[in-house]
Amino acid sequence: MSYRAPVPDIVFTMRHVAGFDRAVADGLYGDLSADLAQTILEEAGRFANDVIAPLNREGDRHGATVKDGAVTTAPGWKEAYKAWTEAGWNALPGPVEYGGQGLPTLLNSACVEMWNSASMAFGIGPVLTHGAIEALEAHASDDLKSHYLEKLVSGEWTATMNLTEPQAGSDLAAVRSRAESVGDGTYRITGQKIFITYGEHDLTDNIIHLVLARLPDAPQGTRGISLFLVPKFLPDGTRNDVRCHSLEHKLGIHGSPTCTMIFGDNGGAIGWLVGEENRGLNCMFTMMNNARLAVGLQGVAIAERAYQQALAYANERKQGRAIGAAEGMSPIVVHPDIQRNLLTMKALTAAARAICYMTAEAIDRAHLEQDAASRKKAHERASLLTPVAKAFSTDIGMEVASLGVQVHGGMGFIEETGAAQHYRDARIAPIYEGTNGIQAIDLVTRKLPLSGGETVHAQIASMRAVVMRIMKEGTPAFGATAPRLRDAIESLDRATSHMLRTISSNAQGEALAGATPYLRLFGIAQGGAALAEAALAANASMAGGDKDPAHPGRIALCRFFAENIAVGAKGLEDTVLGGAGFLQDATLALAS
Amino acid sequence: MSYRAPVPDIVFTMRHVAGFDRAVADGLYGDLSADLAQTILEEAGRFANDVIAPLNREGDRHGATVKDGAVTTAPGWKEAYKAWTEAGWNALPGPVEYGGQGLPTLLNSACVEMWNSASMAFGIGPVLTHGAIEALEAHASDDLKSHYLEKLVSGEWTATMNLTEPQAGSDLAAVRSRAESVGDGTYRITGQKIFITYGEHDLTDNIIHLVLARLPDAPQGTRGISLFLVPKFLPDGTRNDVRCHSLEHKLGIHGSPTCTMIFGDNGGAIGWLVGEENRGLNCMFTMMNNARLAVGLQGVAIAERAYQQALAYANERKQGRAIGAAEGMSPIVVHPDIQRNLLTMKALTAAARAICYMTAEAIDRAHLEQDAASRKKAHERASLLTPVAKAFSTDIGMEVASLGVQVHGGMGFIEETGAAQHYRDARIAPIYEGTNGIQAIDLVTRKLPLSGGETVHAQIASMRAVVMRIMKEGTPAFGATAPRLRDAIESLDRATSHMLRTISSNAQGEALAGATPYLRLFGIAQGGAALAEAALAANASMAGGDKDPAHPGRIALCRFFAENIAVGAKGLEDTVLGGAGFLQDATLALAS
Repeated sequence: MSYRAPVPDIVFTMRHVAGFDRAVADGLYGDLSADLAQTILEEAGRFANDVIAPLNREGDRHGATVKDGAVTTAPGWKEAYKAWTEAGWNALPGPVEYGGQGLPTLLNSACVEMWNSASMAFGIGPVLTHGAIEALEAHASDDLKSHYLEKLVSGEWTATMNLTEPQAGSDLAAVRSRAESVGDGTYRITGQKIFITYGEHDLTDNIIHLVLARLPDAPQGTRGISLFLVPKFLPDGTRNDVRCHSLEHKLGIHGSPTCTMIFGDNGGAIGWLVGEENRGLNCMFTMMNNARLAVGLQGVAIAERAYQQALAYANERKQGRAIGAAEGMSPIVVHPDIQRNLLTMKALTAAARAICYMTAEAIDRAHLEQDAASRKKAHERASLLTPVAKAFSTDIGMEVASLGVQVHGGMGFIEETGAAQHYRDARIAPIYEGTNGIQAIDLVTRKLPLSGGETVHAQIASMRAVVMRIMKEGTPAFGATAPRLRDAIESLDRATSHMLRTISSNAQGEALAGATPYLRLFGIAQGGAALAEAALAANASMAGGDKDPAHPGRIALCRFFAENIAVGAKGLEDTVLGGAGFLQDATLALAS
Repeated sequence: MSYRAPVPDIVFTMRHVAGFDRAVADGLYGDLSADLAQTILEEAGRFANDVIAPLNREGDRHGATVKDGAVTTAPGWKEAYKAWTEAGWNALPGPVEYGGQGLPTLLNSACVEMWNSASMAFGIGPVLTHGAIEALEAHASDDLKSHYLEKLVSGEWTATMNLTEPQAGSDLAAVRSRAESVGDGTYRITGQKIFITYGEHDLTDNIIHLVLARLPDAPQGTRGISLFLVPKFLPDGTRNDVRCHSLEHKLGIHGSPTCTMIFGDNGGAIGWLVGEENRGLNCMFTMMNNARLAVGLQGVAIAERAYQQALAYANERKQGRAIGAAEGMSPIVVHPDIQRNLLTMKALTAAARAICYMTAEAIDRAHLEQDAASRKKAHERASLLTPVAKAFSTDIGMEVASLGVQVHGGMGFIEETGAAQHYRDARIAPIYEGTNGIQAIDLVTRKLPLSGGETVHAQIASMRAVVMRIMKEGTPAFGATAPRLRDAIESLDRATSHMLRTISSNAQGEALAGATPYLRLFGIAQGGAALAEAALAANASMAGGDKDPAHPGRIALCRFFAENIAVGAKGLEDTVLGGAGFLQDATLALAS
């Protein structure tokens, strides 16, 4: 079973949940109309279905290989990447002055989902390139921009993020790679970087590394780290002193080469400073925030693909007899327990998609709003939602992929079936670009306090407004959606107040202890509100005479989420408010 | 990081939670004392640590291979199996009259946990042999028993369960393999069986297949299936007409050969009927119930191993700084979010272990109690707990293995680290021996109604009694254990009443729709009560002057479970009671 891009659901979510139509009405998206967006997404969907998706298995089986420092991607990957860039997909969100199409992050996010559903290992490469484009655009000198941006925007070259070292993962203060100025405006970089995604490959003629390193006499810790641009090939065509030492043997995304990179074995790799000295982490965060949304989209993507595959199997595989059926075996999709699995998969996927797209829209508004106050507000909303988009989506990506295996029964455990690959591939997304634990801590300690808590409270108010609308409509098909969702949102509200109190007190440990369940609670409440938004839009369309058969399904899905998933909110609230007692005795409990 | 059998925790759980001491006091275990049991378990732990655990990686990497129908296990496996049987471990629970040691299921369950922590792929083999021993003991003719039981009990030969066919998995009514009597007391078996664990291998000289097949003119459906014993080598030494056609390429447990078996390519494999004609499924269920407990123990086992590895890494890996620490990096085990992950892992593992051991003790009492009424009561308790032991333990096995990867950060995704193997291996346990969905349906439709609901109500009463004891003690270290646990148990009670009403009404679909969350709720309440039992025993020991440093940790772990995991019970209750609305509209929601 291959992938079919769910363009109608994607377009519906984008327009009616994430606020695409509103942004168009507000004049933020220029000439872009809903029709044009749909045409673009249909085209992207076809490319994902027809060109990328068929490579996913081969990428897994064959993987990337390294010999004498040269990395070869799986058969067909080079051609697919070339076709993809030539069709202009890499340039879609890029700045117009460097050859990009300047289309919204929201539109591109829908595309990113599709590339990654087709193949996570393929989709992760351009995520790094896009991050680098943003970092360079914001921080690099004009000279660097004019040398590199055009080819990165087109995708003729790719880029990497070189952060991690063996002793410096979540804690970048420990970075040891060194850079020395040689007086001609260039630097010599030396050091070892690990886990470098697409650090070396055969897809393009050049690779542009963004590298964190320390200058001599730089302050200790995170305020002594600078960012450098280190190309594989220098402007004069000579090979730079950087090489791929080895590839990791990974659980999943085998098609994506994960490299150990050695800089400066022969005297130092030549690099250029990006941004100011010792401010490298700030520059890096520019690219990391958008990469975090992209990784959240990977969670959505792998969940969507796993769901499609499980649904197809459940429609085809016959075992047991449906209640009330006369005789013979029924397709397993009729069994209530299988339906619960499939609906859980679909509802979590749809909720995560909505959260990611909402985040993307907030990012767009943060750039495109007319006045500074609106931009700031949108920026803070994007900042608040980004860790939720990243962590909730990748957590459910894993859960949905696991349910996908389960729906297949014994066949799910057989590699040829393909469900297992999703389960393996999905496992990286909660780890890279900041582990989900780090996301939760970021949400609680940095994002909740934005504007004195106003940002998060405004977000909660927007969720409450959706519930009010459902109550007003009183449509029976919504079942207990309104009360269930209201309870979840009130749990989130109480947990939020608790967190805001806690982080401004001396009990910071307590906030950290509850961060992960708090983020999950946020995701459930926000996800439920988003699905309710979609259901309300579907309901309104039906009332207006729209016969799209997907509409009643959107209401049913929202109801399923509220009655079966949102009900977990109270338990999470209890955990956030009363679960930190372990802090005193954790050492005892773990020692025994 | 290799495995260290947690013998003290195992012994403590066995004695003070699962009721080993009570069974000894009741005279059920003959000469077996707690001291002797501990000695045996320490010896088993050493064997698991020193002989089996070191093979786990090699089994994964090398896997089993097939050539011309002959299967070769990974290097070292044959020698390890031989040493294991020669040390008498296979014979531990076996019947004394066939050379077994006749030791309790409870004691053997503790051993099964350790074999499987050391290597799931190794541990699953003997599970099938033990199931076959039980089926043959209960149903086979004296002639078959005398021919086969002794060598199966010693482990000189192994056995298999041949149930599944391509069209017959969860639904065995669809079995098509055929058997014809040839008039001399033997039958000729033809057909294809898939997913046959250790169907062919090089560990032993003979393999005894138990095979489900249909006699000519047998009734359709499950009442027309008979069970046959089909040895690889016949008593006269000739090779039987059964062969391994191929091995599956699996997500995990690579060391365990999963075979497609062909019976009767050359005229029919020679087999003997076990039990009565057309009653094969009953005979098979004898072996399947105990295999289900064993698979539950695999869930515990893989969780324990994943926990140990994650804890070791968290103690060693330094990133970030502990709250209040002066400078430098701290081991990540000090960070509250990591502590939450590790405590979640440990608490779920301990809860699942307790449930499995309680199930084992109930099985022992079902065989060993003096009077028939007590045996029946114990049998029903075992029947009630078996699906919970299987499904809850294997679900948490997967969850814990996934958290184990997460604690490792990027290193968790690298195969050499080993955490990923646990994540892969753990994935099969919720599928085989009856998917966890099937377990949940079994629990709700067959086990809750036992003795008109008395069995489940007695079990809930026993959970309530534990809460009462905690309330009476009033020890501050228990925190909010009593109210949290009480709420969870009351949720279970209400959900149980709902289920009992529902299954005896026309709304069977609603019961099926809520079966999976109901089983989880049962597991959480029972697991919490079991950890509270352990904590109370630890508290009593401390009050008696026992300075074992593990005791305060047991109380802290129980508290963590109640305050952070048991709080999920209300949401599950809501789902069971009000979540089945999807049954009407599932087709709509899945179609869109």
